[in-house]
Amino acid sequence: MKAVRYFGHKEVRVVNDLEKPVPKGDEVLLKIGGAGVCHSDLHIIDGGIAGDAVFTLGHENAGWVEAVGETVKGYKKGDAVLVYGPWGCGHCKPCQQSKENYCDHQSELGYGGGLGLNGGMAEYMLVPSSRLLVPIYDLDPVVAAPLTDAALTPYSAIKRSLTKLMPDEYVVVIGVGGLGHVAIQILREISGSEIIACDVTEDKLEFAKELGAAHTVNSKDSDAAEQILKIIGIKKAKVVLDFVGATSTIELGTKVVGMDGDLTIVGLGGGYYQYGSMNGLPFGVTMTNPYWGSRTELMEVIGLARQGKIHIEIEKFDLEQANEVYDKMRQGKIKGRAVLIP
Amino acid sequence: MKAVRYFGHKEVRVVNDLEKPVPKGDEVLLKIGGAGVCHSDLHIIDGGIAGDAVFTLGHENAGWVEAVGETVKGYKKGDAVLVYGPWGCGHCKPCQQSKENYCDHQSELGYGGGLGLNGGMAEYMLVPSSRLLVPIYDLDPVVAAPLTDAALTPYSAIKRSLTKLMPDEYVVVIGVGGLGHVAIQILREISGSEIIACDVTEDKLEFAKELGAAHTVNSKDSDAAEQILKIIGIKKAKVVLDFVGATSTIELGTKVVGMDGDLTIVGLGGGYYQYGSMNGLPFGVTMTNPYWGSRTELMEVIGLARQGKIHIEIEKFDLEQANEVYDKMRQGKIKGRAVLIP
Amino acid sequence: MKAVRYFGHKEVRVVNDLEKPVPKGDEVLLKIGGAGVCHSDLHIIDGGIAGDAVFTLGHENAGWVEAVGETVKGYKKGDAVLVYGPWGCGHCKPCQQSKENYCDHQSELGYGGGLGLNGGMAEYMLVPSSRLLVPIYDLDPVVAAPLTDAALTPYSAIKRSLTKLMPDEYVVVIGVGGLGHVAIQILREISGSEIIACDVTEDKLEFAKELGAAHTVNSKDSDAAEQILKIIGIKKAKVVLDFVGATSTIELGTKVVGMDGDLTIVGLGGGYYQYGSMNGLPFGVTMTNPYWGSRTELMEVIGLARQGKIHIEIEKFDLEQANEVYDKMRQGKIKGRAVLIP
Amino acid sequence: MKAVRYFGHKEVRVVNDLEKPVPKGDEVLLKIGGAGVCHSDLHIIDGGIAGDAVFTLGHENAGWVEAVGETVKGYKKGDAVLVYGPWGCGHCKPCQQSKENYCDHQSELGYGGGLGLNGGMAEYMLVPSSRLLVPIYDLDPVVAAPLTDAALTPYSAIKRSLTKLMPDEYVVVIGVGGLGHVAIQILREISGSEIIACDVTEDKLEFAKELGAAHTVNSKDSDAAEQILKIIGIKKAKVVLDFVGATSTIELGTKVVGMDGDLTIVGLGGGYYQYGSMNGLPFGVTMTNPYWGSRTELMEVIGLARQGKIHIEIEKFDLEQANEVYDKMRQGKIKGRAVLIP
Repeated sequence: MKAVRYFGHKEVRVVNDLEKPVPKGDEVLLKIGGAGVCHSDLHIIDGGIAGDAVFTLGHENAGWVEAVGETVKGYKKGDAVLVYGPWGCGHCKPCQQSKENYCDHQSELGYGGGLGLNGGMAEYMLVPSSRLLVPIYDLDPVVAAPLTDAALTPYSAIKRSLTKLMPDEYVVVIGVGGLGHVAIQILREISGSEIIACDVTEDKLEFAKELGAAHTVNSKDSDAAEQILKIIGIKKAKVVLDFVGATSTIELGTKVVGMDGDLTIVGLGGGYYQYGSMNGLPFGVTMTNPYWGSRTELMEVIGLARQGKIHIEIEKFDLEQANEVYDKMRQGKIKGRAVLIP
Repeated sequence: MKAVRYFGHKEVRVVNDLEKPVPKGDEVLLKIGGAGVCHSDLHIIDGGIAGDAVFTLGHENAGWVEAVGETVKGYKKGDAVLVYGPWGCGHCKPCQQSKENYCDHQSELGYGGGLGLNGGMAEYMLVPSSRLLVPIYDLDPVVAAPLTDAALTPYSAIKRSLTKLMPDEYVVVIGVGGLGHVAIQILREISGSEIIACDVTEDKLEFAKELGAAHTVNSKDSDAAEQILKIIGIKKAKVVLDFVGATSTIELGTKVVGMDGDLTIVGLGGGYYQYGSMNGLPFGVTMTNPYWGSRTELMEVIGLARQGKIHIEIEKFDLEQANEVYDKMRQGKIKGRAVLIP
Repeated sequence: MKAVRYFGHKEVRVVNDLEKPVPKGDEVLLKIGGAGVCHSDLHIIDGGIAGDAVFTLGHENAGWVEAVGETVKGYKKGDAVLVYGPWGCGHCKPCQQSKENYCDHQSELGYGGGLGLNGGMAEYMLVPSSRLLVPIYDLDPVVAAPLTDAALTPYSAIKRSLTKLMPDEYVVVIGVGGLGHVAIQILREISGSEIIACDVTEDKLEFAKELGAAHTVNSKDSDAAEQILKIIGIKKAKVVLDFVGATSTIELGTKVVGMDGDLTIVGLGGGYYQYGSMNGLPFGVTMTNPYWGSRTELMEVIGLARQGKIHIEIEKFDLEQANEVYDKMRQGKIKGRAVLIP
Repeated sequence: MKAVRYFGHKEVRVVNDLEKPVPKGDEVLLKIGGAGVCHSDLHIIDGGIAGDAVFTLGHENAGWVEAVGETVKGYKKGDAVLVYGPWGCGHCKPCQQSKENYCDHQSELGYGGGLGLNGGMAEYMLVPSSRLLVPIYDLDPVVAAPLTDAALTPYSAIKRSLTKLMPDEYVVVIGVGGLGHVAIQILREISGSEIIACDVTEDKLEFAKELGAAHTVNSKDSDAAEQILKIIGIKKAKVVLDFVGATSTIELGTKVVGMDGDLTIVGLGGGYYQYGSMNGLPFGVTMTNPYWGSRTELMEVIGLARQGKIHIEIEKFDLEQANEVYDKMRQGKIKGRAVLIP
């Protein structure tokens, strides 16, 4: 079968000589409907974070059950499903709550299909356990594939703060990109808080307003923090979601978050903050760097999508175009989310 | 000053001989902007539940601070405020969390202004403590007055179940009347769950769809429960909110609520249910009969209203028309919420 | 191999002709260390609630991994484990959170090993999926077996109310039997609330005091509710846990639970309560009938046991003595928990 | 009346010429039973953080109601009460939930009695509102006074993490001093987690064991983190409570806290940490610097004390000995908590 393979040393090739796998035990074989292309792939290819491992790329995968191992129950050929991305040990407490993103054994294991193990940029994908599937019912797998990461990650970050996101509070979203623009939609749908969106270009800010932001502030402005605090008033923001994670955005967050609020840094921008007990961060603020989301949160994301409450812009490509897509991505030429279709 | 007084024995009269009160200590005098008229008033007038007490009616009150007692801090003449309805002892644990609706001493105290003590159907109202006020900023008191009950009560019932109202779940709202139609708007704004609304007339069901219900079922249909379960599937409803509280609606609720779900009966319809460990209610269901809401929940309701996210239909009347309004109400001729304006 | 089999028609026999099963796929074969004997077994044998199904009894099982199917990861021969009791579909949202006790498909499935499917009163037990195991590390399986039900069920009921069980509140435990006496120990260890225990004999009440109850009330006393309310004062009990579930105990619970409190009926005593919006239950009380517990709660129970914080009295018997043990149980002659050892 | 006054410029004098105040409106006059002496007093006296303000010291106060203003309800002469320490605006959302420690207007207001306004090291203290009192019933005010800070602060830090402090998890307490030794007692009583205590002297570690720690590690050891991780295993600590807040202790905390855990820095030791998205802190950890606690949490602390579940060592002194006590404190010669008695 065809597959987009990583061979180490920044090399990606589309091959056509892989055997179609045969599932055994609790394994499931999927016929891939769509595999999302993500910036994290570039961390693997260009950044080399997966080392010399050789594997099929693609960690945002959706398709249909093709065959099941002999002890799989509850799935049959043709069922439309997503593949949950972070693969944990399956047995520890976080895994048993479907939070495999926080598996106790994460440091010992790889990081799931497409992140060191075989992923979904292929005609078929072997999923090591039926527990890693989530049904999508009548959703189109091509549309659904990016939900597994680009929607799940902001959704999980928002759910951490759900009991603080009340309708008399403000939430600041920094970065209206791939994850941030989904975050605004999720906030609009599951919380009553007033949304203030920050980004550095006017078209992104305009987009944020269309998606549900009540206010926008250009974070390049030297007085961006003052502008935000003028909107909110003395109590400051209850929740700040930073989808950039640069030193400047973390700093902006620390200036606008209020006492007992949440400052959640989702973006892996490599920024720093000098945290200290007397460093000006208001008392009671929780500072957190979350990672991906749980499988039951993915079920909830699918609920939002099936009700038509969130939308991710999709560009479709053939499997063979993988390297072309990565190039476009390096040049910032992909609008929305690219999905490879076998 | 003018006031709508209850004199016991089903007698309500508009008088013009009351002294304008003078606030002392922590008391605040309000100039009333609007006083909502509520079905509970008829329980007092026609049902006699407040006994022979003589007092000014009106428990949904909004206006402007007119004068403050000598130790009041944080309020000044002209501030627009709501009066929180249930007046507790102020010191017990629920009261200290602003949940005076569950004050430990509720059984010993009256039930607040307009419910046994002097309320807001008057030119001025003396509020016994500044703690009972909630600022409304730029909201019109006439529009805001009904929020204190008709919006706060469903809001508080919904917040109990907030962590269950996820986007992959269904919530059933029974009764699209004064509280139920606000409940649908609140659910639409602060939860992602799919809303199924039930009522007995087609125009109410049509109204529910306009407000955000995804599905409607006529609860007069003998197979109403089956219709609902057909929409949801095997897991049944995660949350049922019954704004009627008749035996038939409670029974409908018990048939459609799923395991570990919430069956919350807000309506005081006098219905009954034979609760038993083997009586067919799915395991883990919590059955609850809540009462009104907390003051910080009222702040959140005001947040929704200020953002334009919820709307209550208002009909305005003069104070002098109080008995006329009660008559219309007895005949079901008030659409939306009547507000008396001094 | 040897096994205690139910043959329908109230017939239980110890047989010696069963094949030792061979695990495949995700299945695991356990060598049983101990199988707890539970009153629910009598519901099956004498009450016939499992119909004509023929199967090995025993739903409180612990032992060591003997062999694993070919896709099992994370377990190896010799690992000491418990078998989680309620077996769900494994894929629905509750199951994905390890709450198989509330599986969406419970009504379609059986109820797990020893409850319609083959259980653990045998030399070996075939567990259908490795996900149903929980490691016990250095705990003795004989001691651990009863934790799966007699400790997990009260633990889960208590955790529902954990945020209400504060040190300035009172919790009433009705019934100091098999589950109630463990409930008192759990409450002592994980909550600061003051415990009031109720039962009908003085030795049970004395035992409750030894375990951590601060007060005891004989529930046979006609003024039991008044005695309890005298201890607590006007706010009443925040949480009531009824491990009997008879009409009289449910009624006692409704008299002593306070506003916004939890009345949790664990005992399957077949009692009834006329629930109504005007029937005297304080506003905001949640009435719940929970069932068993989740697998991650079982991990927490094991944590309590490993730390020596809870203790269940054990009487050991041979597999062959099964019918003798059931007879003793029918006559109330088992102190603590009987465990069969192959 | 007599009082311990701060006059700015590091000067503290006991005077005898103050007028006994007269409460009006919602104010309450207390006859002081005991006023705790706290290290924060030295920040005021030696560090000058309250500037040139002249006021009576003492922010851990307990006594009996002596007289009430004319609109005070629910308190009468002779009632034994604590004075809640952080005085907020009383009206904002946190204040309405009794969390005046996080008052929206904290930056505009002073910090309460004894911290810039008149406190309780005097024969009588004027409390500006009855809402700031908490009844202690039969507790001795001398014993109760230190609860308002030395017990409330760790209690509130622990409650933040209550749902994570399960019996299968570990909690690390760094610093077994004034707050830390109370934290261990609170953890022992309201959580089932296994406690690992760290300090730099063997007698402190021994003391920690007596109070309920299961393990102790000397944090001076260069391999302290490794010792802790060896006890816990791969999942690391779910919660770390740092009562020191030095750079070295914060660093220790970051090394032993596990994914999705809580790292709560209570101590104001002036330490720093270079927080960054790629800096090695496990994903999902919340880092928080909380401040004091809420009034309803203080009610819960009183519940623990009344049940005899926590104990603070007390040394009693006369008001006149204030400067002597401060000197002893500067020299580290106070064991437990000093309380001044008028």
